[in-house]
Amino acid sequence: MRICVLGGDGYCGWAAALHLSKRGHEVAIVDNFLRRQWDFELGVQTLTPIQPLAERLRVWQELTGKSIELFIGDVTDYDFVSSVFTGFEPDAVVHFAEQRSAPYSMIDRKHAMFTQVNNVAGTLNVLFAIKEFRPDCHLIKLGTMGEYGTPNIDIEEGYIRIEHNGRSDVLPFPKQPGSFYHLSKVHDSHNMMFACKIWGLRATDLNQGVVYGTVTDETSMHEALINRFDYDDVFGTVLNRFCAQAATRHPLTVYGKGGQTRGFLDIRDTVRCIELACLNPANPGECRVYNQFTEQFSVAELAQLVQTAAQKMDLHVDIDHLADPRVEAEQHYYNAKHSKLIDLGLRPHFLNDSLLDSLMNIAVKYQDRVDISLFLPQVNWRSARNPRSKPVASAAIAALESKS
Amino acid sequence: MRICVLGGDGYCGWAAALHLSKRGHEVAIVDNFLRRQWDFELGVQTLTPIQPLAERLRVWQELTGKSIELFIGDVTDYDFVSSVFTGFEPDAVVHFAEQRSAPYSMIDRKHAMFTQVNNVAGTLNVLFAIKEFRPDCHLIKLGTMGEYGTPNIDIEEGYIRIEHNGRSDVLPFPKQPGSFYHLSKVHDSHNMMFACKIWGLRATDLNQGVVYGTVTDETSMHEALINRFDYDDVFGTVLNRFCAQAATRHPLTVYGKGGQTRGFLDIRDTVRCIELACLNPANPGECRVYNQFTEQFSVAELAQLVQTAAQKMDLHVDIDHLADPRVEAEQHYYNAKHSKLIDLGLRPHFLNDSLLDSLMNIAVKYQDRVDISLFLPQVNWRSARNPRSKPVASAAIAALESKS
Repeated sequence: MRICVLGGDGYCGWAAALHLSKRGHEVAIVDNFLRRQWDFELGVQTLTPIQPLAERLRVWQELTGKSIELFIGDVTDYDFVSSVFTGFEPDAVVHFAEQRSAPYSMIDRKHAMFTQVNNVAGTLNVLFAIKEFRPDCHLIKLGTMGEYGTPNIDIEEGYIRIEHNGRSDVLPFPKQPGSFYHLSKVHDSHNMMFACKIWGLRATDLNQGVVYGTVTDETSMHEALINRFDYDDVFGTVLNRFCAQAATRHPLTVYGKGGQTRGFLDIRDTVRCIELACLNPANPGECRVYNQFTEQFSVAELAQLVQTAAQKMDLHVDIDHLADPRVEAEQHYYNAKHSKLIDLGLRPHFLNDSLLDSLMNIAVKYQDRVDISLFLPQVNWRSARNPRSKPVASAAIAALESKS
Repeated sequence: MRICVLGGDGYCGWAAALHLSKRGHEVAIVDNFLRRQWDFELGVQTLTPIQPLAERLRVWQELTGKSIELFIGDVTDYDFVSSVFTGFEPDAVVHFAEQRSAPYSMIDRKHAMFTQVNNVAGTLNVLFAIKEFRPDCHLIKLGTMGEYGTPNIDIEEGYIRIEHNGRSDVLPFPKQPGSFYHLSKVHDSHNMMFACKIWGLRATDLNQGVVYGTVTDETSMHEALINRFDYDDVFGTVLNRFCAQAATRHPLTVYGKGGQTRGFLDIRDTVRCIELACLNPANPGECRVYNQFTEQFSVAELAQLVQTAAQKMDLHVDIDHLADPRVEAEQHYYNAKHSKLIDLGLRPHFLNDSLLDSLMNIAVKYQDRVDISLFLPQVNWRSARNPRSKPVASAAIAALESKS
């Protein structure tokens, strides 16, 4: 199968591209390296020393004999998107090419605007390009579990049967996203459903949970293939931050009460889910939705799991509670369905088994690269202007040092 | 009350600005005249000869002694929006400043992209400006009944209580919009709900039905105050087109079976609803939603009503059915709630009473200005490229002439 991975130089995109290539598919990566640019903007870097994409691809070919085609450009540029479709003629397009950080989208108006315009415009371009050049091509689009928010009812996979005043219909599950980023994914989802309906396109919307882990079978083949490990306050995810904190013997910083519960999955399951979605295309006109995660945890539970795992490595760390910089329920009901990918054959990796070998060991191995000024949140949802400031970072360091 | 009307030179905006001014509010109009530009782009014009805004405002002041402040600029320009907020200091902002035509958004990729980026960016700017400059200011935002689509259950006003697997929650009503334009309004609605939640803003989202009529108490005071009457295939609404067709003795063109049922309201009720929304602000943090229409009709019913009304004026016209250029259900259940504005004091004007005096008489009066090449649809939802073509227009004329 000819599969185009948009955003193939990013965290999920890179792992997915290698996995698909290893599994024998013809793979092209499309990227504009904006993800690397955001690191420069924010003054952060991945804990793991990732290589330039050209070097990554050279080593991959050397190791496996498989070449991955590369298109450098921006999916908000339709001429470029067109050239990718006519040049590569994909059977499936996996679309990771979006700004994917909630805090980044909440920095200020410009970052909110950039996130929504960039993500919505890119996805619109992909939909129009499929319609124009490859109407049978299957779009696999990364959404997020965060589109649903935390309703007081079970979360279904994309659609829900509603009984109301004696009548019944299956309708899109109501969305209550929690950041301008999450909102952009909701906008995308609505646009995709519509494009499928009017043009008969095929699409699968993967509402992914929080991904953890750095290691996949493919990225572990060579140091040059190593994947990102983001632990900073903007692009880092909570588990990565906890591991970086534990590795450097700093308290784990839980936002608020820590009852915030979300779906999580191992990056090894992400890449498998992507291939399963590719191998099982939606029907023409169908916008299929899968909830892509394997386990639910509250933030407080994660902190305890990391604390326990760290103890086994003789790292003793406290758990601190900070005021929650986000506007979100700190205690809530959460039960999200996630059986469709299991039905297709997904065999999950569970966190308890991965925590030490795929997270803590990476954090410990690269602990000298940890910048502890990135542990504390600098983006407050209640403020519309969150300038990144050195004084805040210095104060954060001082506060952390005094506790460690 | 100090009320800023964004898009105050457009159809609903102009009528609302005059009504609010007449009722004693301090009114400012914000407009960039894009609506007039689109007429030039499409080669269409309003049936009624509208005056330049400066002339409209001059006559209004002469007649009433009331001046309306004017800010000329684009709401997607944040510096401009900021200057409006600091210059006028509004208590309420009525936001009509969006691209509001479904067919326009479906012309091609560029028009779809423009519609979504323009509408979403403008509304984001307004939300950020309220947060930054006037956090207590009430936003009254025009949404559309088209956000809901045509579900097989009753449509509630914005939110619905869902019972599911033994639990219950009140959630945003699921949306199934039917064009890139309607999608842009859904995106706006989600963004507004979020801004109210995180910043405690006050907002009222008015999901308006299809507005008809040209005459309000204020616009009828002087010929220079006359409002738009759009009957063309892109910006025209179905009732206006039917009246223009009847006035020129052409068959009424129903798309498909004509079972498409929608909510409708008289422009005199639009302006009253706007004032009611202003006078009853949402609470801080509340995103209130009203369904703003007064009666439901199917397109086939409207055609019959116009046919009957025309007959009273000795205009005998047939009803034709064309292939539906839109992708929509041609027969469906439709029952949308609309009691909240009635509860606030709205006393509806009904179509049967307005059809002759506010629609047919205008169409007949200006029948010499009708361009019959604009009667037939040129934008097909199933195509991603709908270039506006003279040959199509000529063929349309020939077809119509042969029937009339």
